[in-house]
Amino acid sequence: MKLATVHRACGSLRVYAARPGSRFSVLSRGCPPVGVINSRLIIRTASAATSSGTQPRCTANTGKGSSEEVWSGSDSSAWEVVQRTKEAIETLQKQNPEVQPLLAILQVSVCFAQSAYFISKAGDDDGMLEINKKMVGKAGLNVTQICLAKGCSEDEIVEELLKLNDDPRVHGVYLHLPPAALTSRVLNTLKPEKDVDGKSDLNVGRLVRGDLSRGFVPPVAAAVLDLLRKNDFPLEGKNVLLVGGEGPLALGMQCMIERSGMAVLRSHWDSKNLQTQMMQADAVVLLGAGNMDIPPTWVRPGAAIIRCEPTVQPDDHSMSLSTRSGLGYLTAAYRAQNVVHSCSRWLKEQQYRSWQLRSLKLQTLTPVPSDIEISRAQTPKPIDQLAEEIGLLPEELEAYGRSKAKVRLSLLDRLRSQPDGKYVLVAGIEILKRCFYCISSITPTPLGEGKSTVTIGLVQAMSAHLKLNSFACLRQPSQGPTFGVKGGAAGGGYAQVIPMEEFNLHLTGDIHAITAANNLVAAAIDARMLHEATQSDKALFNRLVPSVNGFRRFSPIQISRLRRLGINKTDPASLTLQDVSTFVRLDIDPSKVTWQRVLDTNDRFLRKVTIGQASTEKGHIRETGFDIAVASEIMAILALADSLEDMKNRLARMVVGTSRSGQPVTAEDLGVSGALAVLMKDAIKPTLMQTLEGTPVFVHAGPFANIAHGNSSVLADKLALKLVGRDGFVVTEAGFGADIGMEKFFNIKCRASGLRPNVVVLVVTVRALKMHGGGPNVSAGTPLPREYINENLNLVAGGCHSNLRKQIQIAQLFGVPVVVALNAFKTDTKAETDLVCQIAKECGASDAVLCQHWSQGGRGCLELAQAVNEAAQKPTNFQFLYNLEMPIEEKIRTIAQKVYGADDIELSPEAKSKTDYYNQQGYGSLPICMAKTHLSLSHMPEKKGAPTGFVLPIRDVRASIGAGFIYPLVGTMSTMPGLPTRPCFYDIDLDPFTEEITGLF
Amino acid sequence: MKLATVHRACGSLRVYAARPGSRFSVLSRGCPPVGVINSRLIIRTASAATSSGTQPRCTANTGKGSSEEVWSGSDSSAWEVVQRTKEAIETLQKQNPEVQPLLAILQVSVCFAQSAYFISKAGDDDGMLEINKKMVGKAGLNVTQICLAKGCSEDEIVEELLKLNDDPRVHGVYLHLPPAALTSRVLNTLKPEKDVDGKSDLNVGRLVRGDLSRGFVPPVAAAVLDLLRKNDFPLEGKNVLLVGGEGPLALGMQCMIERSGMAVLRSHWDSKNLQTQMMQADAVVLLGAGNMDIPPTWVRPGAAIIRCEPTVQPDDHSMSLSTRSGLGYLTAAYRAQNVVHSCSRWLKEQQYRSWQLRSLKLQTLTPVPSDIEISRAQTPKPIDQLAEEIGLLPEELEAYGRSKAKVRLSLLDRLRSQPDGKYVLVAGIEILKRCFYCISSITPTPLGEGKSTVTIGLVQAMSAHLKLNSFACLRQPSQGPTFGVKGGAAGGGYAQVIPMEEFNLHLTGDIHAITAANNLVAAAIDARMLHEATQSDKALFNRLVPSVNGFRRFSPIQISRLRRLGINKTDPASLTLQDVSTFVRLDIDPSKVTWQRVLDTNDRFLRKVTIGQASTEKGHIRETGFDIAVASEIMAILALADSLEDMKNRLARMVVGTSRSGQPVTAEDLGVSGALAVLMKDAIKPTLMQTLEGTPVFVHAGPFANIAHGNSSVLADKLALKLVGRDGFVVTEAGFGADIGMEKFFNIKCRASGLRPNVVVLVVTVRALKMHGGGPNVSAGTPLPREYINENLNLVAGGCHSNLRKQIQIAQLFGVPVVVALNAFKTDTKAETDLVCQIAKECGASDAVLCQHWSQGGRGCLELAQAVNEAAQKPTNFQFLYNLEMPIEEKIRTIAQKVYGADDIELSPEAKSKTDYYNQQGYGSLPICMAKTHLSLSHMPEKKGAPTGFVLPIRDVRASIGAGFIYPLVGTMSTMPGLPTRPCFYDIDLDPFTEEITGLF
Repeated sequence: MKLATVHRACGSLRVYAARPGSRFSVLSRGCPPVGVINSRLIIRTASAATSSGTQPRCTANTGKGSSEEVWSGSDSSAWEVVQRTKEAIETLQKQNPEVQPLLAILQVSVCFAQSAYFISKAGDDDGMLEINKKMVGKAGLNVTQICLAKGCSEDEIVEELLKLNDDPRVHGVYLHLPPAALTSRVLNTLKPEKDVDGKSDLNVGRLVRGDLSRGFVPPVAAAVLDLLRKNDFPLEGKNVLLVGGEGPLALGMQCMIERSGMAVLRSHWDSKNLQTQMMQADAVVLLGAGNMDIPPTWVRPGAAIIRCEPTVQPDDHSMSLSTRSGLGYLTAAYRAQNVVHSCSRWLKEQQYRSWQLRSLKLQTLTPVPSDIEISRAQTPKPIDQLAEEIGLLPEELEAYGRSKAKVRLSLLDRLRSQPDGKYVLVAGIEILKRCFYCISSITPTPLGEGKSTVTIGLVQAMSAHLKLNSFACLRQPSQGPTFGVKGGAAGGGYAQVIPMEEFNLHLTGDIHAITAANNLVAAAIDARMLHEATQSDKALFNRLVPSVNGFRRFSPIQISRLRRLGINKTDPASLTLQDVSTFVRLDIDPSKVTWQRVLDTNDRFLRKVTIGQASTEKGHIRETGFDIAVASEIMAILALADSLEDMKNRLARMVVGTSRSGQPVTAEDLGVSGALAVLMKDAIKPTLMQTLEGTPVFVHAGPFANIAHGNSSVLADKLALKLVGRDGFVVTEAGFGADIGMEKFFNIKCRASGLRPNVVVLVVTVRALKMHGGGPNVSAGTPLPREYINENLNLVAGGCHSNLRKQIQIAQLFGVPVVVALNAFKTDTKAETDLVCQIAKECGASDAVLCQHWSQGGRGCLELAQAVNEAAQKPTNFQFLYNLEMPIEEKIRTIAQKVYGADDIELSPEAKSKTDYYNQQGYGSLPICMAKTHLSLSHMPEKKGAPTGFVLPIRDVRASIGAGFIYPLVGTMSTMPGLPTRPCFYDIDLDPFTEEITGLF
Repeated sequence: MKLATVHRACGSLRVYAARPGSRFSVLSRGCPPVGVINSRLIIRTASAATSSGTQPRCTANTGKGSSEEVWSGSDSSAWEVVQRTKEAIETLQKQNPEVQPLLAILQVSVCFAQSAYFISKAGDDDGMLEINKKMVGKAGLNVTQICLAKGCSEDEIVEELLKLNDDPRVHGVYLHLPPAALTSRVLNTLKPEKDVDGKSDLNVGRLVRGDLSRGFVPPVAAAVLDLLRKNDFPLEGKNVLLVGGEGPLALGMQCMIERSGMAVLRSHWDSKNLQTQMMQADAVVLLGAGNMDIPPTWVRPGAAIIRCEPTVQPDDHSMSLSTRSGLGYLTAAYRAQNVVHSCSRWLKEQQYRSWQLRSLKLQTLTPVPSDIEISRAQTPKPIDQLAEEIGLLPEELEAYGRSKAKVRLSLLDRLRSQPDGKYVLVAGIEILKRCFYCISSITPTPLGEGKSTVTIGLVQAMSAHLKLNSFACLRQPSQGPTFGVKGGAAGGGYAQVIPMEEFNLHLTGDIHAITAANNLVAAAIDARMLHEATQSDKALFNRLVPSVNGFRRFSPIQISRLRRLGINKTDPASLTLQDVSTFVRLDIDPSKVTWQRVLDTNDRFLRKVTIGQASTEKGHIRETGFDIAVASEIMAILALADSLEDMKNRLARMVVGTSRSGQPVTAEDLGVSGALAVLMKDAIKPTLMQTLEGTPVFVHAGPFANIAHGNSSVLADKLALKLVGRDGFVVTEAGFGADIGMEKFFNIKCRASGLRPNVVVLVVTVRALKMHGGGPNVSAGTPLPREYINENLNLVAGGCHSNLRKQIQIAQLFGVPVVVALNAFKTDTKAETDLVCQIAKECGASDAVLCQHWSQGGRGCLELAQAVNEAAQKPTNFQFLYNLEMPIEEKIRTIAQKVYGADDIELSPEAKSKTDYYNQQGYGSLPICMAKTHLSLSHMPEKKGAPTGFVLPIRDVRASIGAGFIYPLVGTMSTMPGLPTRPCFYDIDLDPFTEEITGLF
């Protein structure tokens, strides 16, 4: 690159040739010089400009020696930029010690490598590269160089660029490519945020429109402006002549110069008026290739001349000068600066900030239309847009259609230094709601307290109205019941997740993945029992450890089993006959297989089945059963795992049955755990959706709330807590009432996650409280007794003083403040709602407020949002209810007494012997997951209020070793719902032309 | 908007005030005029310029009348543009009769509505709108106006813009918004391709970089340039002074003027040199608001002045002139032109073109690594990029992660006038391959002929090397066997679909959706039988048609059933007791339920089961079984449906069993068909993936190839045929050998789709031919006999003359040319491969070529691609093998004799009685889907070559009424595979840190 810097000596500027008598190399590439300039160009050193006031150090550029001086001088101009850049990096690294700004240089073989604006003699090209590397290095950046083969295609360049685009370590890319390779496609393939040369259409447009918050000033333009400034111009009002260069660079430069207050005249090299124009200019910037010499007489005395144009004069010493010094260095320094800008923007984007969320406007109607009508009336934001708004990087998102996406766990690593937001648990006082396997009406009476709607209403209020970053974390509903009895889990009214049909059907396939994984285990168990029953030890061994090309070797999962068996050998040949027998025989006791098959269908006929009746199974029939898919232990694992590794380990630990000698048999023993992890690799990523008001929601995992812990996933909560940041809120929901869902949330989920909630929101309804206060029983499908329709303060007070008080106390057992959310129904009177709020506060709630989100959306939940925000500022004094090291029976007793209000517990003989067995197997220190009815605090569904004076019977005790809990059975739990006589699929239909779904809720 | 047009009179240009003595309104908004120009501005009419050579019609603009004249005159300049635009629309509509270019105008309440560059007096704003509407209307465009409420937020504007972005009917958007509303976010939210004013950063950048193939020239810049040109300047070399206006408009204008060969001087209104600059300019363009008057003496005689700047002079007559005429009209006309440009680009994108596909470079290794290693070594293109390359619109794509996406069926409608590409069927001579339920080795001998690899190699060759648009359509593999015995379906070696693990696991959930739908039907059947058995007619009726708020009404699906029963009533109250009984009782015979449950798991213990053994099912046990999910009739329906409506109808028609009175019971009778359509609504969209070389692949449906027709979906083929266009190729694959897969492809799939293939590619291997030529039997897991390893021309010739000849003849039965693809193995000798090719051609193949795609990718399949391309140019003479109206037995006989070479068929008594029953039920005219072994042309697996002299026994005949075929059973078909002693899940694992999968093939 040819450069002549500007110089002011003794108040006047003169133009000289780079070397006396040498050709003034304003040349087009490859053309011989056509004229000689006799005058000399004196290079003003940048240091002279910076030490203004002192006499500038002037040097005639007459030879190598002087050029070195010039170089060191010009360098010092760049030095300032480098210093600033260095300081900027240090500042960045103070906050982000691990960050390292990185410039990637993409080049092709040397003789092709001439950049668009800097063309140097062959071989000197490396000089440009070296300058860049040197300056970038001096500034403290890292450089990576990608060298493509000579004659590589545009496709290959694009491929490299796409890789650089996707590489989060790269903050800027310098395209050191031949001009012919800098096609529109190449320039625009590079991500604009890494286009530090500002050459893409978008960045050119940003520069022209004046939006420099996201684009980049082309380094060469910055360098030229710097030189103009250094020349001590009072820039305003001066005229600058830009000669040549019609590309965006010239226009960009013009923009920058004009913004400095100068007027710009653009001219061509072949303009007839060039001489006149130059004579009138206060400064001249020469761009591009002009095949002519400029006589020094053309330039006005005192005018500055800056040139940045190609030359290929091979022996011209000015060449090495130009490439190594001045504008070349300055440009490289500004490029380095741009890389740091890019890096700093990237960091900023990841730092905590209040989201710039585009909330979707709600136009609420009265009466409130059906859920699906409300959902359909709102156009969801494209999910990638929502993701961008909440600070997700595009590479962290895996879209599933346009309204849902999986979020990668790598996010946790990227944001690990980000402080978590506040953690809010929504629990309820469950009484009836959607008990999907017992209701046979299409219109279940809305007695449920509406935890989901409160959860969603609360985040709508916080995010869309109070502009507090907030996330709702919900469970994925089982698909089976969707076709059984009415009732979705996407919230309701104006507090919903949209599109609700996507939420309720398939979603992103997690439950299907669980079904596949669960049933692979089941198939493996029965196939293994058959193979063991029909083959000798030797035959089994030969098949399990087959000879491949004459060699036998164990797979890693088999070595793992050998180690568990105490056989520390890795060579199959070294096993003794006894070893072989121990290794090949799991010897599963068919009557002690605890693993069930699952389906996400309400198929009651599969509750108990006999399998293996085909002749191919040679009479190995056995009785077993199917559960609904969400009852699978794999679902509980998905909800509790905190990483892929953790999930894999839990899957391996799952106990599927017992051997004839009483040893537990695990999924790893079956050799299937790696395959399970593979089947579940996508399911572990939470699914992002949105509320009706366009605020973010994670939907992830939905384990049964009795035989499992009934909470959404640990990972979704963790991701959300990072995304909302310090001042944000994550609202997560516990299944069933506070006695079940909340207790398990604290004792099981919080233990697994290490997270501690800041606030508990306890959701109540006047109707539910009336029932707990002694109101008549309600059976779904029959008219609602009028106690629930007309004002009845006695019943309300009764419910508050018994059940509500107890529920608040349960939360307080754990040391977390409680806010009571009273979910309004239109039949509630003001006296009733006031009474509830008053008693709740008397019972120790931090606050108690009426919520109208169902009819008003987030706006109807503002008061709750404020109350939660206030409560979250209070210090918490969190503690677990029991110590894990307590005996199993003692842990059960603690829950029964402190949470349920029982006098004591009573274990059946079976429960007792199981407890002993678990203790003996080393499972004694697992937490407890009570499988109890959700309809009463006691084991008796009809006992409302806060029953006392009862002994809780423990019928049986089971264990989910992979999920990591012991579950005592209090009564009989159905784990496979059925279909009513008129399932709601009768009303579900799809318009094949509009693709609109009808009848879904 | 204020306008003064240029005028040339009698060879010289003079500048006059708009009205003598009036103020020359170069004013900033709201400021009073500060000076008076005494000279007059003569308006040159545009018509004068167009009728060059004649004396221009000049008018002094002295009053209303003359202004009218001026108006009509200036209008005629716009008139030209309008005429051109009109003609352009007519041209467009000739090719696309339905297209209608549409401009959307987004505005807010009138008093805020002043556009950025045109500010007019309050109330006159409507004038600007009217001009736009008028010009747009004159040009023949449609206009839609969106009026937002006063004081609407930026979010609301953005929301509207997103809607307009997504609306395919809108081709351009005019943002008629107050300047303050034209934020960076608003400007950049609008899709660049609809930004007809060229204001977005990207379009500004494109303009500056000179890429006008995609951006837009801002209409006002086009108008100014037009006026400059109309002034008959020899533009080159002239100087234009641009005063004011620092925005992108000014720069855009500058670009355009400079590109016309003029030099541009930019100046500010407050420049001290303004007078000098104006005096020197050949033309002056006044932009933006300058708070000053320009004395006429400043302007050089003969210079043109064009002004486009705001004025709010309320009573100035020039005002109405400016808004109503000249530049305003001309600008509006150019805006209309841009809308047509946009529309025409949109149409062009949808027309047939050779794809600009970025192919992925293959770096083939020797020896060829494992499939998963090859797959992982290649970085797939982002799927949305591939979609764009092949002409899909973003709104037609639903991404599922980054490497797969569903494609919406709306594509078929958009491209309905596009001619289809050529249709190529790949069939094989199946002999052993991946027979997943009988092989118990982890290394099945590769005897399979490799249809999938040929299919993929062929499209890789065509798309990536020959630059012929081509698409592969593959079946989705069942996931169950993936964990059983080795064998993927993603191709192999260097001819694969990537990422292969995505292809083989879950994919986009279609099979899971089928599982859910299939099992919902099963659950509905058993639940219904239970409910009918335990309830009275009245109870059933009350539940099936429940009283909601005192009213009973039938759901549409119930009315449909009533109609089928001949009860033409819609009021539940009007049914007689007999009607009620008929309606509520499906009276399904438990022993005649044909519907099975399914799982996508190799679970042999579910082949025969007893269900309903829990006490809750009250003893209603029955025997039934599970099939692998792909054996579900719903999979066959997915593969044959040609629209959502067709699928829904087929689902409704599915017969699940027989009533005690012998009537077929359908899914619609169960009331479940709408729900099934809802469950399947996404599964019907084919999944887009890519080959190793980055060419497109559809993966869709994978029905069993014996009890169903074994072909990929009709819809994928149809979509692909439109996408490749006239000269492109769609390569689709038939399951099993030509005798089964191809025959069913023609007789079942082609009947359903109406598509006709152009070429059949018959895939063979030397080893398979040797086996058909009399080579020894091979059992998987044992060493391969040396006949298959060493050269043996006799066996090869034997296989060719028997089996290959027969297979070619089968294809010729249907009148389609055959190309034989010989899939190379390393043990093949040249003499062997030459012999195959020679005999194949003698037997009537159009061509026969050796394929090396497994080791070389597309490059190894070039010869095949050329051969297929040539064969596709030949005329075909397609015909079906049998007429649908033939009796069922006759159709079976035709296939057995003509295709299999049997002497005759023999129906068992059961088969005979079923045939009669189907005839009686009106199913007699369905096509036949033979369920026969794929290991021989006969029913005897061990009979290789082309057996003759046998009678084909038909054991049973069954029917898939929804899918629409009768399937005779020849022998026993296993529809549920099992797991071997050492399933391949032993080797499958996931690295929890890199997320890399190992052991998967």
